[in-house]
Order: sequence, then structure tokens, then C-alpha cells
Amino acid sequence: MNQAPHVSAAAYVGAPTGPRAVEPAMRRALALAELGPAHGPNPRVGCVLLDPGGRTVGEGFHRGAGTPHAEVAALAHARSRGIDPRGTTAVVTLEPCAHQGRTGPCADALVDAGVAAVYVAVSDPNPVATGGAARLRAAGVGVTTGVLADEGEKLLRMWLHAVRTGRPYVTLKLATSLDGRVAAADGTSRWITGARARAHAHTIRAQVDAIAVGSGTVLADDPSLTARTADGGLFEHQPLRVVLGRRPIPDDARLRGPGGPLLHLAGDDLDAALRALGLREVRHLLVEGGPTLATALLAADAVDELHAYVAPVLLGAGATAVGDLGVTTIGEAARFATHEVTRLGDDVLMVARRARPAQPVQATQPADSAQTGRPTHQPTQEEI
Amino acid sequence: MNQAPHVSAAAYVGAPTGPRAVEPAMRRALALAELGPAHGPNPRVGCVLLDPGGRTVGEGFHRGAGTPHAEVAALAHARSRGIDPRGTTAVVTLEPCAHQGRTGPCADALVDAGVAAVYVAVSDPNPVATGGAARLRAAGVGVTTGVLADEGEKLLRMWLHAVRTGRPYVTLKLATSLDGRVAAADGTSRWITGARARAHAHTIRAQVDAIAVGSGTVLADDPSLTARTADGGLFEHQPLRVVLGRRPIPDDARLRGPGGPLLHLAGDDLDAALRALGLREVRHLLVEGGPTLATALLAADAVDELHAYVAPVLLGAGATAVGDLGVTTIGEAARFATHEVTRLGDDVLMVARRARPAQPVQATQPADSAQTGRPTHQPTQEEI
Ligand SMILES: NC(=O)c1ccc[n+]([C@@H]2O[C@H](COP(=O)([O-])OP(=O)(O)OC[C@H]3O[C@@H](n4cnc5c(N)ncnc54)[C@H](OP(=O)(O)O)[C@@H]3O)[C@@H](O)[C@H]2O)c1
Ligand SMILES: NC(=O)c1ccc[n+]([C@@H]2O[C@H](COP(=O)([O-])OP(=O)(O)OC[C@H]3O[C@@H](n4cnc5c(N)ncnc54)[C@H](OP(=O)(O)O)[C@@H]3O)[C@@H](O)[C@H]2O)c1
Repeated sequence: MNQAPHVSAAAYVGAPTGPRAVEPAMRRALALAELGPAHGPNPRVGCVLLDPGGRTVGEGFHRGAGTPHAEVAALAHARSRGIDPRGTTAVVTLEPCAHQGRTGPCADALVDAGVAAVYVAVSDPNPVATGGAARLRAAGVGVTTGVLADEGEKLLRMWLHAVRTGRPYVTLKLATSLDGRVAAADGTSRWITGARARAHAHTIRAQVDAIAVGSGTVLADDPSLTARTADGGLFEHQPLRVVLGRRPIPDDARLRGPGGPLLHLAGDDLDAALRALGLREVRHLLVEGGPTLATALLAADAVDELHAYVAPVLLGAGATAVGDLGVTTIGEAARFATHEVTRLGDDVLMVARRARPAQPVQATQPADSAQTGRPTHQPTQEEI
Repeated sequence: MNQAPHVSAAAYVGAPTGPRAVEPAMRRALALAELGPAHGPNPRVGCVLLDPGGRTVGEGFHRGAGTPHAEVAALAHARSRGIDPRGTTAVVTLEPCAHQGRTGPCADALVDAGVAAVYVAVSDPNPVATGGAARLRAAGVGVTTGVLADEGEKLLRMWLHAVRTGRPYVTLKLATSLDGRVAAADGTSRWITGARARAHAHTIRAQVDAIAVGSGTVLADDPSLTARTADGGLFEHQPLRVVLGRRPIPDDARLRGPGGPLLHLAGDDLDAALRALGLREVRHLLVEGGPTLATALLAADAVDELHAYVAPVLLGAGATAVGDLGVTTIGEAARFATHEVTRLGDDVLMVARRARPAQPVQATQPADSAQTGRPTHQPTQEEI
């Protein structure tokens, strides 16, 4: 590790030497990062610039594809206040990129600005963007990584998963009765859960990159798969709409109407579908499909997170949330770890995550990947 | 309404005349009542005695069948402090009984003690105990009813239901996976939920009068149906154990072991079973039966409260919590109103109540009913 003795100790008067002294600034950078959009191909990144006296002279965060990276925003912020960033310390949540995008690598921008030291929470696993720390060190800038690494990983959990595996982070949404039904005997599923649960589900739709259903749900429910506000309007961000399955999508289907682009993946190879979505830089996929698709995803162990909206209702008949998973005894059940429980009117939302070991990195990122700062390719309606 | 002008206004210096002035004392009486046991044939009652200056001179609550009623306890408390209760105001959560039990009617005890006025939250619906207010008034004691009546009804909700309908308040417990299964394909149901949920369920067992299962559960799971502490010991109070169904209980069944008395109701007439339990003064029945019994209860609209322990687990096969209820479309679903949501480790407990109009009073109470102060008949092992 390449410490930056000429800045780090001096940065906080009376504070101990080393990365710990930078923690308050990193917490601020993490909070800044969270101001960025949850969706989009690029990670949420925040950056704080400290002068040698430890005072904040600039702050920035990434506002989404096509806008400046956090480091560039922080440098611009300092300059807009008449402060020369030369000799400052940059505290940034993700390793500055070394990738030539629209704006040039952030590592070079920091070097060019004369930044003296850089503290990083999480190293960039993105094969096309990594190398920023090495580039900085080669230019004589001290780089310390791993400052509040756990918090940084937490913030970037879905993005890191997607970049490391080449597949989106998959959230499976279920809206069930207490006896696990997702529809009544006649196939009606509107509305098992109440208005507050449905409104909540729409705020999640507005945070994801894509939303997928199987063709069974398209034909049964004719959903629009848009992210709608409480008054029925469309949120500004509309996720990509994905339909999985061979059957054609009716010409008058609601999901051909206003909303995100439509993508029909006309097959049943889940792995191929997820990799195709990964290549399109879909980082977070919300699956709202019916029991058939849910079962296939669970059987393939492709569900990273469950959003179960449970209503205090008993149906006694109708399709259950999932079909046969090959589980015969309790010990074999697909278990998730509860992350959050939220009461929404009469209903409850359980957010639970699959506890799985991290998967190996797959270099499946396209060249115009994360950290490039360029608006990324938006898929349009097509059938592949 | 027979106000008690010589006490009520004076009781709270500077407070307005009338029942409102007594509210603080009634709140205290309600809190005292809650110190009594939740189980048992008798209601939880609290009583506060105020002197003419509005000072509390005695407090009491009912500690369960066989112990003094709240009013008698409060009078004894005042006397034990050397205070003559003559001229005091009694603030009591339930109308004093007029029933000759082991200790004589509470109304008479208050008259004999020279209590000048009585404030009551809830009138006694119990046909054998009611009439206390009339008896007090006949003796010249002012009686005001309906003070914090809603809070009083809430405290006595289960008991009032039982006394009014002649049937126990029925809580149906379900322990389900997120897809509504109560057992895996091989019939194993231990353990869908985790240790904290199971421990919670045992504290509920320790609060109810009886716990029922169908013979299917006895044969499949061989449950002991005892209320156990975290370390596996038995709680002091053990509910009556009830088995519903024609099939015999095996001689070596665990529920023949240490625990509450065993009652085998060898039929399938639910209404008759519930009335039989009502006659035995079972006020709160916890049903932990399997799907067959749960379905029969729901189909008969005999479930007053649901306790659904939901685990973040998907099984994909195995028995669902309930079978056919004749529901074909969402609008016909059996809906409950959520009362409480509690996270228990990875699991969630949803407590939900059936919103139903109050049923007419049925005079099915035996002579040795609530409010008698006598230890009630404890059923022993038998098959009827
Ligand atoms: N409460 C809820 O949360 C909820 C949500 C959605 C739907 N629903 C209800 O679910 C019912 C529809 O159920 P469903 O199971 O037919 O819907 P589905 O799971 O959305 O669609 C099933 C279809 O997905 C396609 N598919 C794509 N990849 C697949 C794979 N790897 N394995 C299997 N199938 C794959 C197949 O289409 P092809 O046959 O065309 O190839 C399959 O028939 C409706 O009653 C709807 O109301 C409830
Ligand atoms: N997860 C949970 O919350 C939970 C709880 C309990 C059990 N379980 C599981 O449930 C399974 C047992 O299921 P089950 O349905 O057989 O158990 P059950 O509902 O406890 O027992 C069914 C039996 O109840 C009797 N019965 C009495 N009155 C009845 C009425 N009015 N209508 C219908 N039946 C009546 C009948 O016995 P006769 O035929 O003898 O007359 C019937 O066969 C086991 O796998 C067990 O592990 C799960």
C-alpha cells in the first residue's frame, strides 16, 4: 500500500495518521454517492476533496450515464469556488477509472489537477475501467484503498454483482396471500395486496434497469410494466421491459404502450437471457413474472433477492408462488436471509437475500461499459 | 345515569365534574388489570379506590380464578394501610359482579364497605354475573358506566367475545414458507420457522386456555402441545390440550406426557366442539392444527385472529396452509385486518384479525362461570 505521508497525517489536525483519519470524509463521499440514481449502467460514486488542513474544498457525485464522474465533479466544484485543487487529497468511494471514455480517465484528471493523495473505498472490478490506482501511483500520487470498504461494497452491492458476474442482480418480486397464492382459482391476481404495497412496488420499478415477466403473465394480466406514481403518471425513469418466452406478444399488449423500451427474449434459456441482459448493462433486473418463471429462476439459483409482499388473505386455491423446486424435505428448502421487513398498510414486505459465495469475475463487459461517462446504448423494441 | 355528585367533582381538585375527571384513575385500573393472567375463565379486572380528595387509597387486580376479585383486593389493600374505605370512590374496569360465588358478590362488598360512588369502564355481559350496577344503585351508591369504555373493551376483547358468543376466541396459528407451505413434500414441518419464532409461539401457548390440533397433526408430528420456556422447561401455566378428530390418539403420543390436561373431541362438528369448549370456560383457543382443520375453521368463519409466522423460505411443494375455501376470485378471499407485524429473527409474525360484526349473546355460561372467584373445573384426560 502506497501511503501519502505528505497529506494524510496533516489532513486532520490532531487526528491519528492513516486511513482512519479520512473516514469522516469517506462517510460523506458515500452519502454523496447515494444521491446518484440507483439505476443505470454506471456505479454510484461520491468524492470529497480535502485541503492539507483537512477542510473540504470540493464535493461531487455521479448523476448517471452521460454526466461527469464524481472526481471530475468534485474538481469542478472546487474550481467554481475559486480553489485550485493542487495539493488536495481526494476521498472517493470507488477506484478512479483508467478508462478512456468521453471525458478521459478520472485518474488522469486527478493527476492533471495536481491532487497529492487519493483514498479509495472499493477497488474497481470492472475489467475495462480498472487500473486507475496503478496509473495514479505511476504519476507519484499516493493511493490508499480499502477505507470503509464494507460500506462501499454495500452501496455498490448490485453493481458489483453485475460487473463481477456479467449478469444482472436479480430481484424476484412476489405478491402473495398468506397461503402463498399469487392468483385466485380464476387466474385473477388483482389485487391480492393493497394500494400501499402496489405503490411501493412502483417505486422499486423506478429504481431498476429492467423488469421481466414470462409470456404467461403477459397473456394473463396484460401488464404495462411501467413505473407509475401514486396519481398514475409515469416516473421519469422507466425500466427496460423484458418478456421471456416463445409465445408472441399480442400487438395490442399494454407493454407496447408508453413506458420503457421493450425487449422480447423469445427462448427459455435463462442463463443466456441473463447474460444478454448483462451485456446490455442491465445491472438490476426485477422479475415480476408468474410462478413458471419464478420457479425456473429459483431452480437455477438465479435469484439474489426476494421482495415478498404478503397480504393477510387466505385463498385456499389458485396458483402458488412457486412450483416444484425438487425440494422434498425441509432441510433442502431455498432459504433466504431477511434483510428488511416493512409494513405497508395491511400488507408486509419481506426483503430477503440469498446467501451465496461471490462468483468469479467474467470479462463480459462491452467496451462502452460502466465508468465511461457516456450515455449507453438503449435497446429498443425488438425480438431476438 | 346515576351520577355521584358528592364525590366525583371533589375527587380531582380543579378538574371538571363528571366521568372525565376519573379517567386517570381508570387508566391506572386498566394497567393494573393487565397484571393479571391472560388465560383463565375470569376476566382481567383492575380497581382503584380514591378518597374524597382524589388521592389513591387502595389498588387491586384479579390474579386469576380462586383469588379475590379486583374490588375486594383494593378494599383489602386500603384496610391494610389503615384506611377505612368508607366514602371512597371505586374506579373499576368491569362492572362489579352481582353473583354469589365463594366470596359473595363484589357489589355487596362495595356497599358493605360504604363506598360512595363507582365508575365502570365496561358493563358485564356475563348473564350469571351481571346486575352489579343495579344492586349498587339500589343501595344508594352512584354508578357511572362507560368511562374509557373502548380501552376496557380492548383489554377484555377475547373474554368478551367468549362470554357473548358462548364459544372461545379462536386464534389460528400458521407457520408457513413464503409460498404458503406448512410442510415439505415428505410431510416434515420442523422447522420451517426459526428459533425465535418458535419461542414466541410458546409464549402465546402460555397465555391461552387451550390449544387444539386435528388428529392428522397428532399422527404426523406427535407434538407435545406444551408451553415451553427457551431452555425447554414447562411454563407454570399449561393450556388444555385438545385433539379434534375421530382417529384414536396413540397410547405413546407425546401429548399424553407432562403438560396440560388432554381432551379428545372425537367428531368433526366444529360448532359443537367450540360450544363444548365454551362450556368449559375456554375463553381463548389457539389452533395449531394442520391444513385440514385450518380449512374447516376458515370455511366456518370461526377464526377470529390469525398468527402467521412466515419464513423467508420457498419450498415449491408440500401441503399449503389451507385447502379449498370455495374462493374462486380475489374478491371472495378471506381477508383479515393486520393488527401487528413483528420481526422474529429471519421470520415475520403477522397478527391479523377478522373484521366481523359482534354476534348476539348466547346464555350458554354454566353457573360456575366467570366472576365467581372459584377455581373452575379442570377437565382431565378423557375421550368424548
Ligand atoms: N401475484 C404475483 O406476484 C403475480 C405476478 C405475475 C403473474 N401472476 C399470475 O401468474 C399467472 C401467470 O403464470 P405463468 O406461470 O404462466 O406466468 P410466467 O411465469 O410469467 O410465464 C410463463 C412463461 O414464461 C416463459 N419462459 C421463459 N423462460 C422460461 C424458462 N426458463 N422456464 C419456463 N418458462 C419460461 C414460458 O413462455 P413460453 O411458453 O411462451 O415459451 C412460460 O410459459 C397469472 O395468473 C398471473 O396473474 C402473479
Ligand atoms: N406449519 C404448521 O403451521 C403446521 C401445523 C400443524 C401441522 N402441520 C402439518 O400438517 C400436516 C397434517 O395435516 P392435517 O391436515 O392432516 O392435520 P390436521 O388438520 O391437524 O388434522 C386433520 C384431521 O382433523 C380432524 N378433524 C376434526 N374436525 C374436523 C373438521 N371439522 N373438518 C375436518 N377435519 C376435522 C380429522 O380427523 P379424523 O380424520 O381423525 O376424524 C382430520 O383428518 C403434517 O404434515 C404437519 O406437519 C403444519
